[in-house]
Amino acid sequence: MVSVTSAVSAAEDTTKGSPVPLPAGFTCAGCACGLKKSGANDLGIIICEQGAAAAGVFTTNLVAAAPVQVSRRHLRANHGHANALLVNSGCANAATGPQGLANCESVVDSVAALLGVDREAVLVNSTGVIGVQLDSARIEAALESLVASASAADATTFARAIMTTDTRLKVVRRAVAGSSATVVGVAKGAGMIHPNMATMIAVLMTDAEIEPPQLDSALRHAVEGSFHRISVDGDTSTNDSVFALASGQAGAASLAELQAAFDSAARDLALMVVQDGEGFERGIEVQVTRASTAANALQLARTVAMSLLVRTAVTGGDPNWGRILAAAGRAGVAFDPDRINISANGVRLFGAGQPAQSTLEQRREAFNQSVVRIEIDLAQGTARDHFFSCGLTKRYVEINADYTT
Amino acid sequence: MVSVTSAVSAAEDTTKGSPVPLPAGFTCAGCACGLKKSGANDLGIIICEQGAAAAGVFTTNLVAAAPVQVSRRHLRANHGHANALLVNSGCANAATGPQGLANCESVVDSVAALLGVDREAVLVNSTGVIGVQLDSARIEAALESLVASASAADATTFARAIMTTDTRLKVVRRAVAGSSATVVGVAKGAGMIHPNMATMIAVLMTDAEIEPPQLDSALRHAVEGSFHRISVDGDTSTNDSVFALASGQAGAASLAELQAAFDSAARDLALMVVQDGEGFERGIEVQVTRASTAANALQLARTVAMSLLVRTAVTGGDPNWGRILAAAGRAGVAFDPDRINISANGVRLFGAGQPAQSTLEQRREAFNQSVVRIEIDLAQGTARDHFFSCGLTKRYVEINADYTT
Repeated sequence: MVSVTSAVSAAEDTTKGSPVPLPAGFTCAGCACGLKKSGANDLGIIICEQGAAAAGVFTTNLVAAAPVQVSRRHLRANHGHANALLVNSGCANAATGPQGLANCESVVDSVAALLGVDREAVLVNSTGVIGVQLDSARIEAALESLVASASAADATTFARAIMTTDTRLKVVRRAVAGSSATVVGVAKGAGMIHPNMATMIAVLMTDAEIEPPQLDSALRHAVEGSFHRISVDGDTSTNDSVFALASGQAGAASLAELQAAFDSAARDLALMVVQDGEGFERGIEVQVTRASTAANALQLARTVAMSLLVRTAVTGGDPNWGRILAAAGRAGVAFDPDRINISANGVRLFGAGQPAQSTLEQRREAFNQSVVRIEIDLAQGTARDHFFSCGLTKRYVEINADYTT
Repeated sequence: MVSVTSAVSAAEDTTKGSPVPLPAGFTCAGCACGLKKSGANDLGIIICEQGAAAAGVFTTNLVAAAPVQVSRRHLRANHGHANALLVNSGCANAATGPQGLANCESVVDSVAALLGVDREAVLVNSTGVIGVQLDSARIEAALESLVASASAADATTFARAIMTTDTRLKVVRRAVAGSSATVVGVAKGAGMIHPNMATMIAVLMTDAEIEPPQLDSALRHAVEGSFHRISVDGDTSTNDSVFALASGQAGAASLAELQAAFDSAARDLALMVVQDGEGFERGIEVQVTRASTAANALQLARTVAMSLLVRTAVTGGDPNWGRILAAAGRAGVAFDPDRINISANGVRLFGAGQPAQSTLEQRREAFNQSVVRIEIDLAQGTARDHFFSCGLTKRYVEINADYTT
């Protein structure tokens, strides 16, 4: 089990400035095209000139942003292949109607013309305020020099362009064991110049050779264990997207090893997103063990991790474990309160239906850690699952309330 | 539709100090027995010497506090009749195992002996920190003088004893049309000396004559439209209980009129609980209309009302309506984003799949009200429902985080 702290180190590694080279077959670039009033970078592109197998996992929100609609359509129409992924920050292009769709398609057409590929070979996403029309002219004016500057030398140029209020770069690199292939992952998360939604975008690139259906399945597996196990505020964005691109230029790799690299990269990116969540002070990791089904374990872990009262107790370093038990009790998962065991960072809190014998000092120490690991043992079966979140802070409220449109 | 503001006035009326006489057949009292270190009142009793039809609606939390278990059992064993309801604040007596149950039963036995009634005729509840054993000796030592001081003159003595960090008394009184019967309701909510859970306790008393099964059904109806339509933080307590007691001493009343009085009293008490929620600054009322089913309307209204991003936008008076649309889109309710209409306090925000034509100034004004009424028209059917919550504030986080056990 990769822990939150190990992901912190990974994040620190990648922000220490050294460039992260792309897998073979990819180039990327980032620039400022003027969507952000601050003048910060707001446009990034990943190019795979010779084409890549491509897959995407998109928001389950009924209200899908224009670029999500377009990318879904293109992945189907082009049978899981793509030559480019363009991402802008500064505007989500969601809830923008036919005009929003037309703006998105216009941008895509320009990219396709510039690269000399079919429009269906271009994927796209946007992140920013919902309900504002995209200034596609600014993007189109910047495209030529953006593409001209693309290089294989450093994934952080793309990662920087899609950051908003992110405070850390989120880039990871994994070798695929038994092959010369690598996986490079990039993500942005949980904060924007105009704080709006925990809009999450991630891309996994690899030069391993893999067919689109297998790539799709590998991506879904990686997302399930990572981005589907984190939450900053429970609000699913209209723009959430995770893409996978495989150039094949490093030749064949073991599917199991590629899956392991995808899983590991996605999990670390997901933890980086939580740790860079708005107002982040302290992490929460809920482990549910000995559940009757994996679905029950996940449901219970998620409910406890997202409880506002658990999250505020963690922020305050307050070992108020009754809140953990109460959240478990409302999770809709059957268990016997007289048989479960609850502990935090190894300190027992509740068991045999009553308070455990730990001292207040021990319990306080368990809650005054950078990550509070809550273990809930249901004593019913063999299934287990986990969920990651973070303490709810005054700063989170401040970021999301003290902003005026 | 009773609005939040009308409930504000109701709450203000009842805090203006005038005593609220009980329905015929009831007496009540409150005192400080020493459970609260502050010395504030922490023990209250309602007595119906000649017996009352009784009903209760209890927490759905799997982890039910000892007094909830005992009250459930007594209501069944005594076929919906009771002579007394004892409530303490300062300790929830939840997650306390066999010892907690024994402490609760000891208190109940003392009340029964003092009043000369069966133990099954005594109902009980507790509110406070979870996982701490109840000091039943303090309660038992105070019972005799508590019972001796009981009077029919004023429900606020009981209401005051069950308050914790509540800042307002929550008492309402309704006449039952076409009869001499009245309904008096008392509630506590959403805050404790040791902030812990939105533990909610309410009692509706009436002197109308009604059989236990009808009383139970009238209570469930009243709760459905009131306490089941509010949330402060989404955390269902281990102790939530709403009781109804009917002495019958005012004789027969129309069941429909009694239901109307119950519904109105419960709704106002529920709104008072929201308005006195921890860190309350601004109310939220979500109305969903033209839904295909009532269940869909409720599900969607609840999801929007409880979205952290909607709740922080309301706190900031920020007309960031994309968050409302995005929350609706993840509610698990099917609708056509191109047909729905969203407005706030009458100002149109979204319709025909795109931003509405209101000005930023109009939208800002709509969000800078003491209650932000969000109207979501699904344009699918004829069902409707609503949900009440409040802006999420820094003060809420402060109250729940900056407390050390």
